[in-house]
Amino acid sequence: MKVQAYAVSAPEEKLTPFSYELGELGSEQVDIKVQYCGICHSDLSMMQNDWGMTQYPLVPGHEIIGEVIAAGDAVKNINVGDTVGLGWTSASCMGCQQCMSGDHHLCSTSEGTIVGRHGGFADYVRGHWSWAIALPEGIDKSKAGPLLCGGITVFNPIILSGVLPTHKVGVIGIGGLGHMALKFLKHWGCEVVAFSSSPEKEAQILDMGATKVIDSTSPEALESIAGTLDFILNTTNVTLDWNSYLTTLAPKGKFHTVGAAMEPLEIPAFSLIGGEKSVGGSPIGSPALTKTMLDFCVRHNIYPTVEEFPMDDINEAVQHLKDGKARFRVVLKNG
Amino acid sequence: MKVQAYAVSAPEEKLTPFSYELGELGSEQVDIKVQYCGICHSDLSMMQNDWGMTQYPLVPGHEIIGEVIAAGDAVKNINVGDTVGLGWTSASCMGCQQCMSGDHHLCSTSEGTIVGRHGGFADYVRGHWSWAIALPEGIDKSKAGPLLCGGITVFNPIILSGVLPTHKVGVIGIGGLGHMALKFLKHWGCEVVAFSSSPEKEAQILDMGATKVIDSTSPEALESIAGTLDFILNTTNVTLDWNSYLTTLAPKGKFHTVGAAMEPLEIPAFSLIGGEKSVGGSPIGSPALTKTMLDFCVRHNIYPTVEEFPMDDINEAVQHLKDGKARFRVVLKNG
Repeated sequence: MKVQAYAVSAPEEKLTPFSYELGELGSEQVDIKVQYCGICHSDLSMMQNDWGMTQYPLVPGHEIIGEVIAAGDAVKNINVGDTVGLGWTSASCMGCQQCMSGDHHLCSTSEGTIVGRHGGFADYVRGHWSWAIALPEGIDKSKAGPLLCGGITVFNPIILSGVLPTHKVGVIGIGGLGHMALKFLKHWGCEVVAFSSSPEKEAQILDMGATKVIDSTSPEALESIAGTLDFILNTTNVTLDWNSYLTTLAPKGKFHTVGAAMEPLEIPAFSLIGGEKSVGGSPIGSPALTKTMLDFCVRHNIYPTVEEFPMDDINEAVQHLKDGKARFRVVLKNG
Repeated sequence: MKVQAYAVSAPEEKLTPFSYELGELGSEQVDIKVQYCGICHSDLSMMQNDWGMTQYPLVPGHEIIGEVIAAGDAVKNINVGDTVGLGWTSASCMGCQQCMSGDHHLCSTSEGTIVGRHGGFADYVRGHWSWAIALPEGIDKSKAGPLLCGGITVFNPIILSGVLPTHKVGVIGIGGLGHMALKFLKHWGCEVVAFSSSPEKEAQILDMGATKVIDSTSPEALESIAGTLDFILNTTNVTLDWNSYLTTLAPKGKFHTVGAAMEPLEIPAFSLIGGEKSVGGSPIGSPALTKTMLDFCVRHNIYPTVEEFPMDDINEAVQHLKDGKARFRVVLKNG
């Protein structure tokens, strides 16, 4: 089958129409007719080869919603005609200790949807059945795409860190990831502090579920909530004053990052020891947890705040995100 | 009551006989006749004013075993004649959120046994009843002292980090703290890797419970166990190649430090994110957990490996520890 897509052929180049042959469908694979595809910051990183692992030409796109149009004969749980989501990962080995523990996202030989293969800025995309997550009844398909990568990335830490409805929590960086974290944590029942360097977003941030907005550029503002937070989720990838944030944690508080600052985090040992604090991180989440998250989203009507562009306006949409103008997540629509 | 003790009056000075008046017993306090007292590295730090909080003259000593000889009228659970242990902390407020949660060791106004008051290198010492831990039947009093500070410091992380008997674990630094960690983890049922820079201790380290000894000065040795450990406990207070140790962790692995390196830990974000790893720390542990630990020690016959000195040879004993000759913990005996 011939796929019609958009690809970049070098860093900093625009996306241009590109077609490629999918080849024979593997027995454990499904083909998905792409209806929507979100644009994630990691699409930009891959387009620019920031991580040194891009193979050109590259068709980006890994927040995919679409309909299964073909399924290999060993596919489980998914049928032709099902609506599914496909995120950062398109396959994992299914046999290693991580996969067998339900942690398919930690499989060391997992395949990225846009790593060495082509993604969802296209009319069709292929993946292993295990990562084609069946969407629950009643979900809004036009907004669900970003849940498959950005959404699960901020949902997983809430589970991993054992966040409870009684907890006071903080989210650093209220952008594509952070605004979804606010919505999850609001519906988790938590008191939610948003750390933002964009005071002009304050009304919108409060509206999305924050109890309070703290100016992240102000040391005094951070000091004013010292010792109060049980959990902080960092969604930025810049170097922060890590110790100032550790100081805002209550005893036993957990700092968790999903943003990958290039410089190492500098963490004073005393800041961990005195209050039994910890610093952790995580990538996306497992297929099972992604399913659980989607059910939670439907039950509470939680969606990213999206701006929709036609797939054909893809370069405009990418530029919008690059310019920092996205409020808060961009989704491309096919057809 | 007049206490006969040993005190330092300035950094780098020797301990000399010193007496002081205890004053009236508070209603929630107990007086303890000291039978044994361990010497901990933090005694040395306090004697030298390394942490800038020493008040001279200072009577060090906070790994105390003794008999209660007086109890105020509001004391709970402890009676005159009981044998108790008193560790790093001698009192906490009992009313704050941490105390009321059973985390008395995280009370922000807790009192250190040798911080602004006098400790156990003496014939008597005083403390709040809550931190005078009743010793279980059958315990070896001559070896139990170091459990009250060093022991609980390495026991608490095992509980905090949810270590299971099925886990593969590592201990960095096999000294006063680390050797107790090996013994606990052996009886926890774990496979235990000891990271040591002293190969001459190998036979002894294996004998204490390690399954394998890794030369901590060899990057190749660390690399040989990459991705295998579920939990690492760092008992050293020097700057390590943190990322090399993170690399030895399996997915979801936890690195925990009880040693306080003076320079911040440098932790690459990617090393946390990829495998859902975390870095945490803790001080001592709560009175309730200390009691639980002592029961566990009696049940499994777990004690530090100690060298005993008469209290009157205190300067010799301190020098032995300072010289790095202690194998592995020094205990002073009164009378």
